[in-house]
Amino acid sequence: MSDASASGNDIVTAAVLVIGDEILSGRTKDKNIGYIAEYLDRMGIRLTEVRIVADIEAEIVAALNVLRQRFSYVFTTGGIGPTHDDITASSVAAAFGIGISENEEALDLLRQRHSETELNPGRRRMARIPHGATLIQNTVSQAPGFQVENVFVMAGVPKIMQAMLDALSPRLVGGKVLKVANIKTDIREGDAAEPLAAIQDRHHDVSIGSYPFFRDGGYGTVIVCRAIDEVALNAAAEDVRTVFKAMGASAEIAPQSPS
Amino acid sequence: MSDASASGNDIVTAAVLVIGDEILSGRTKDKNIGYIAEYLDRMGIRLTEVRIVADIEAEIVAALNVLRQRFSYVFTTGGIGPTHDDITASSVAAAFGIGISENEEALDLLRQRHSETELNPGRRRMARIPHGATLIQNTVSQAPGFQVENVFVMAGVPKIMQAMLDALSPRLVGGKVLKVANIKTDIREGDAAEPLAAIQDRHHDVSIGSYPFFRDGGYGTVIVCRAIDEVALNAAAEDVRTVFKAMGASAEIAPQSPS
Repeated sequence: MSDASASGNDIVTAAVLVIGDEILSGRTKDKNIGYIAEYLDRMGIRLTEVRIVADIEAEIVAALNVLRQRFSYVFTTGGIGPTHDDITASSVAAAFGIGISENEEALDLLRQRHSETELNPGRRRMARIPHGATLIQNTVSQAPGFQVENVFVMAGVPKIMQAMLDALSPRLVGGKVLKVANIKTDIREGDAAEPLAAIQDRHHDVSIGSYPFFRDGGYGTVIVCRAIDEVALNAAAEDVRTVFKAMGASAEIAPQSPS
Repeated sequence: MSDASASGNDIVTAAVLVIGDEILSGRTKDKNIGYIAEYLDRMGIRLTEVRIVADIEAEIVAALNVLRQRFSYVFTTGGIGPTHDDITASSVAAAFGIGISENEEALDLLRQRHSETELNPGRRRMARIPHGATLIQNTVSQAPGFQVENVFVMAGVPKIMQAMLDALSPRLVGGKVLKVANIKTDIREGDAAEPLAAIQDRHHDVSIGSYPFFRDGGYGTVIVCRAIDEVALNAAAEDVRTVFKAMGASAEIAPQSPS
């Protein structure tokens, strides 16, 4: 599936593939998934699946070849550093069945930061890029990520990943943005469940989710309505508010930003 | 694959399946994966894959049926609340091809917290348990999770999930615990790469990972050695320390806990 398949009118989907033993051992807590999720959401790209796999080429290749067929875009994080355990670039090349070698443009980027003596075989590893890939520059570390077809390969270090996401985002074609209305209520989720199921039945174009909260000794539920169509969204949100008010509960429609 | 396949001498593996639109939209940041990863690691159970999927039965069933065949244990989080968007229990029943209905034991647990009038159809939904499943109690919410064969179904709310993990952990058979040695050095990762690759070649029973850090204006690299055999582990860690010291770098072996 190529980028061209994504148009402003379609539903555009994405997967994230996190590559790294350190996430699976719990040593490092992932900070990228949530960031990418929100970033894509704002562009009208729906993150639909995430996988985390170990630093094992066969695992990376298998996951990548499923995800890149199934979704408009795939974003990988991790495994593009200078050391022997960084095997993402060669795994991506293997997944696409293409070659990989030192890329002159990538080497030039590394030379902006490193002298020729510093450009040892380890650092030069970071210039090994699959053939035909387009680089993804970043302002933090110089070592580039890269794009092959609909797969975007990024660093695992959050600050570098975020810079790469900014750099590559002009290449993404977003779909229709899901608009969001949050209704915060003091009703308990167990009491909200039945009326909410009935409301969902009346609003098929709106996805209604329910999330209990427990804070500062209080409790309640946030109802999250999501829809492409703003009229449909507002009708559902107003329905929630009216029904909950009639039950004697508080029910205020909160700003559309995630909370 | 049944629990019986896990013995104290085998390598015991696990997958986590996070179920929830709210994670994929970025609205909620997952706090469970890292917690479960560390928890299992201490028991000698290797978290080998994580997937995050949406609240869509077909997606849940497909992921579950792959993961439960491939790994010793599967842990799911999310989607067992009282509302219409909580479809994990019925999806697990579908994945195993078994029935689901109100479970008397689960209802009794809910009755410890809720009066009969409070036990409305929404809350009673939380007592719908696949046939033949074993409940997983928790001290926080009363609403139980459940186990079917090697699949453990837990809540998404971190405090409840953690209580469930404590409750179910006696049912898990751990494998050999991977011991860890961290070596913190002021050498930059790009300079550590070549010697580290050579060290890895000398210690095949030890997995050596490398993680750069940037903190308080300083930088450096943490080398993480992991192995079942403590003698092999210590030999590799000492090799790292000796080689880095010879390069004029700092290299201290840190405590074996994740940092």
